[in-house]
Amino acid sequence: MKLWQDKIRKVVPYVPGEQPKIKDIVKLNTNECPYPPSPMVEKAIKEFDTKELRKYPSIEFTELKAALSAYYKVGSEQLFLGNGSDEVLAICFQTFFNSDKPVLFPDVTYSFYDVWCDLYNIPYKRVPLDESFNIIPSDYYGENGGIVIANPNAPTSVYMPLSSIEDILEHNKDVIVIIDEAYIDFGGESAVSLLDKYDNLCVVQTYSKSRALAGMRVGYAMSNKDLVFALEAVKNSFNSYPLDSIAQAAATAAALDTAYFDECRNKIINTRQRLIAELDKLGFTTLPSFANFIFTTYKNRNAKPLFEYLRSKGVIVRYFNKPRIDAYLRITVGTDSETDRLLAEIKNFIG
Amino acid sequence: MKLWQDKIRKVVPYVPGEQPKIKDIVKLNTNECPYPPSPMVEKAIKEFDTKELRKYPSIEFTELKAALSAYYKVGSEQLFLGNGSDEVLAICFQTFFNSDKPVLFPDVTYSFYDVWCDLYNIPYKRVPLDESFNIIPSDYYGENGGIVIANPNAPTSVYMPLSSIEDILEHNKDVIVIIDEAYIDFGGESAVSLLDKYDNLCVVQTYSKSRALAGMRVGYAMSNKDLVFALEAVKNSFNSYPLDSIAQAAATAAALDTAYFDECRNKIINTRQRLIAELDKLGFTTLPSFANFIFTTYKNRNAKPLFEYLRSKGVIVRYFNKPRIDAYLRITVGTDSETDRLLAEIKNFIG
Repeated sequence: MKLWQDKIRKVVPYVPGEQPKIKDIVKLNTNECPYPPSPMVEKAIKEFDTKELRKYPSIEFTELKAALSAYYKVGSEQLFLGNGSDEVLAICFQTFFNSDKPVLFPDVTYSFYDVWCDLYNIPYKRVPLDESFNIIPSDYYGENGGIVIANPNAPTSVYMPLSSIEDILEHNKDVIVIIDEAYIDFGGESAVSLLDKYDNLCVVQTYSKSRALAGMRVGYAMSNKDLVFALEAVKNSFNSYPLDSIAQAAATAAALDTAYFDECRNKIINTRQRLIAELDKLGFTTLPSFANFIFTTYKNRNAKPLFEYLRSKGVIVRYFNKPRIDAYLRITVGTDSETDRLLAEIKNFIG
Repeated sequence: MKLWQDKIRKVVPYVPGEQPKIKDIVKLNTNECPYPPSPMVEKAIKEFDTKELRKYPSIEFTELKAALSAYYKVGSEQLFLGNGSDEVLAICFQTFFNSDKPVLFPDVTYSFYDVWCDLYNIPYKRVPLDESFNIIPSDYYGENGGIVIANPNAPTSVYMPLSSIEDILEHNKDVIVIIDEAYIDFGGESAVSLLDKYDNLCVVQTYSKSRALAGMRVGYAMSNKDLVFALEAVKNSFNSYPLDSIAQAAATAAALDTAYFDECRNKIINTRQRLIAELDKLGFTTLPSFANFIFTTYKNRNAKPLFEYLRSKGVIVRYFNKPRIDAYLRITVGTDSETDRLLAEIKNFIG
């Protein structure tokens, strides 16, 4: 063994859902939007003057922040942009969680949270969800180094009402509380309305789900200007220009096309409710979903055989070989025809 | 003061060169390429199917790695891609420098190196350049936690021959040596040819300079597969998808158009030599440049008045208010007409 190997950082990384390159698959494993981005996004990209790419991107994000400010009714100094909400969340962890006390998050939640804690040497404690996969606010009353809640939660799809978020905030005024709202646009109410009341709140959202731009890598945090200032300083100590010029143009166009945004998410909500109803008829139990995916079990049997059967038929969903959730599949809500094909294959399987 | 403010990370970030939004300026302050990216880049972007943006980007970078592999004659498993070479370098620092001993780099060099050390709590020591701003290999023989050399160095533009790089590698087999080659394509010889011989070498390059894609954010490291594996693990613990789909397509096209690449860099080298010759005639002393910028002084006088005069005339260059280098301006090599305007304004100033 070489001496230098000794000093190399070894970590266990997050494993994203696969991106298979097979034709004609129904890809329901990474919670992407089944619809393309807004036609205004296409226009912005086609009309982008590629000569400008020789120059560094803007670091002020003037147009993009203006569009998001108008939509969310927050000041532009309350917005922090990054290369997908994963980068935004990572920088939030690095910036906000510098305590000896453990950061708290649910035992079943986005599996990147503990990876970031390991990466930045942040102590953490997993707080169990209740039997129905609900987050219980009073479980988060104790001393801690910060709190991270995905709302709706992933991979469960379960939503907690804003009153419960506020309950957690009321009991945790001395630490930063991050609400990860990657899936908030599918029926939930954003905690952004609480920003004026709680200066320790940081709300994170993404372009990868409801705005159909996973391929463009744009995420953002909304908080008070002091926390945004701290995030900017850490970001600028890491990488000054995480958002390229075309991504900025595309994200601006997507934020401005609110009609298309509403149309897409409503279609997804409608398909979701139909999918849940059809699965009900087949004997499945599905958690109440406020997301663009569902979490469903067939009679609490281990879900691996169904996962593998679907895969063999070209329908890719997500199965987590983990305690508590190995009887469930996480299935992205696709188009109506993708949903029909999924349901047909499920029927074939359960015969 | 709020209790949570106590636990927020405070850092002093890197300050990038300004991106003024004034019309008709001659922008020679951030070492961008004065020429647009390859026409093949424009074609790749215009033909990109924007519907695909609903999906996450590829994390395999198959086409992009194939193009870079062919150009640099390295295996695709020797390539690590990231969101600009700043992200690549940051992840290199985080991955490779986990020693109690100080990382070494020159006292005058890219000012992000100490920022990353501070961010990741890496001890470091600045090694003085000699009087002519040269890096002296024997200064790097002592015990250390790793070495970072920008070659050509910035903001000096001074190049060190490959034999000197090899000398440093020979004396530092127990630590990782990073050669930051942001400016290597303007006359220098890449250390990539030493990869087979030194398994502790990591060469970092960027699309922001010679490939005219600063706005697209693409950088890469070339090393042996074990070090790339370690980089990938840290990267995947931070952000799985740092390179969006369009950036990948643009970067692939740029790497394939080697004729355009050569044409651009040759034009820049020619303009650089003319600029240096003209400045000589005016009484300037310019360091021997192997970069797309020059580092020049007028009779060792403090350069701030000239910097401010040029700025008032719409010619933006870079001045560093720092010991050893405050008599110098760093001037990006622009087009020939930009160079003419720069020279005219300099003549006006020195009268």
